[in-house]
Amino acid sequence: MLGSAVWAGITDLSEALELTDSEGLERIGYDGDEPCAAGDVHSYLELHIEQGPYLEQRDLSVGVVEGTYGMAWLEATVTGEADHAGPTPMHRRSDAMAAAADAANGVHELPNRLSADAVATVGRMDVSPGSVNVIPNDVTFTVDVRSYDDDVVAEAVSKTESEIAAACDRWDTEFELEELWRIPHTEFSETVRDASRAGVEAADVSYQEMIGGAGHDANYVNRVTDSGMLFVPSVDGKTHTEAEFTEWEDAVAGAKAYAATVEELATE
Amino acid sequence: MLGSAVWAGITDLSEALELTDSEGLERIGYDGDEPCAAGDVHSYLELHIEQGPYLEQRDLSVGVVEGTYGMAWLEATVTGEADHAGPTPMHRRSDAMAAAADAANGVHELPNRLSADAVATVGRMDVSPGSVNVIPNDVTFTVDVRSYDDDVVAEAVSKTESEIAAACDRWDTEFELEELWRIPHTEFSETVRDASRAGVEAADVSYQEMIGGAGHDANYVNRVTDSGMLFVPSVDGKTHTEAEFTEWEDAVAGAKAYAATVEELATE
Repeated sequence: MLGSAVWAGITDLSEALELTDSEGLERIGYDGDEPCAAGDVHSYLELHIEQGPYLEQRDLSVGVVEGTYGMAWLEATVTGEADHAGPTPMHRRSDAMAAAADAANGVHELPNRLSADAVATVGRMDVSPGSVNVIPNDVTFTVDVRSYDDDVVAEAVSKTESEIAAACDRWDTEFELEELWRIPHTEFSETVRDASRAGVEAADVSYQEMIGGAGHDANYVNRVTDSGMLFVPSVDGKTHTEAEFTEWEDAVAGAKAYAATVEELATE
Repeated sequence: MLGSAVWAGITDLSEALELTDSEGLERIGYDGDEPCAAGDVHSYLELHIEQGPYLEQRDLSVGVVEGTYGMAWLEATVTGEADHAGPTPMHRRSDAMAAAADAANGVHELPNRLSADAVATVGRMDVSPGSVNVIPNDVTFTVDVRSYDDDVVAEAVSKTESEIAAACDRWDTEFELEELWRIPHTEFSETVRDASRAGVEAADVSYQEMIGGAGHDANYVNRVTDSGMLFVPSVDGKTHTEAEFTEWEDAVAGAKAYAATVEELATE
């Protein structure tokens, strides 16, 4: 979403060009010739795989996306003291791993307590020094929380902090919590959603309106011009893995719905 | 302890020479000229830092080690399914990180339920793919459990497995558990302990008999000949970190006690 963030004026071009990835991949040095900025665009329609199980479970070919989840990304660093795993009694430990596991456990239980649509994920955890017989003194982990309700996201962020604080208190450790990213939920343009419903019906494919859980370019573009999305099913809900797959007939249905929606938008 | 394991005939020389470390450090190719095997040894006395807080807390200069903890090292691999952190509802997840955190949490609580001297440590945890917005499908972590009572270690191993099994059941994931290493507790030679008490008293330093939490060369050598250990205090119990330190006066007390004990053993 970096290109669309710059295009929509949300992220500075210079800031985007300075970003590096976590593994230090080298920049190829090619920035392109066209200016990355919003021009005169009537509307924007993005066709995407669903990346979740909703459409497949209901045996539908297309989803007209009402909007997408708000989300927050957090990074927690828990600091304890490195000690020998043998001679250090449990009550003398400042075990960053024990605190992090305890906190992560709390984070994973948060959605149950907040909202039916809320999700929480600890996707990364780096443990240092990372030796079988040394009590870890430094654990860094990420938390990804999402909901269509921005208040639920805000509450998830605040409860994530209190879960980590309670776990660090129990295990005599300290922590820092950084918010890496937050975007509010997006409600896509009524104009594009109306055209999408009309287009999907004209294409005569099965569909339903739905909420998307992931962030997409359309989220940012929607801030500049009328935007919307169509989803096609992901087999077994899989994405960002080699198992990601969409049946050919669903891809065709999506393309037909897309063409019909564009025609609706072009002739409105 | 690899050298002493080969020396005492517990590990094959060829097996030891084939070992690599987890970071793939290169072998330097020098194996030495002397055969690594037990010869005719009267007894063995090892002077070591305590690596724990016991002596310092009691303001003692030397510990005569009665024996050392038994211990087990385990490696658990939890397998789930990689899915997008947004569109995958909580109830559809097979989250290896959630299961691993849940299991680690249970492991850290085990000592409380087993024995006053038991300890449990999760020292390493590797999370894959390790991306903020991807539900992890593969988490590997180690468990180190110890006690002076071998039955407590055996129970800790068995309860570690049931904690992991329960967590994997809750989070719809699978696991494998490998026992990397297990050694029974060691009770050092009466002959060496008697000589140590006499030596420490002759050296006129403050001391107490105690149990050691870590594994040492003396554990293996004790299987071949009468062995024992003397501890000196570790400031703040620190070891295996740059903060490891022993006061000079304690080092001197330890050296005096060592010399006097060797004299006792040589003249018994």
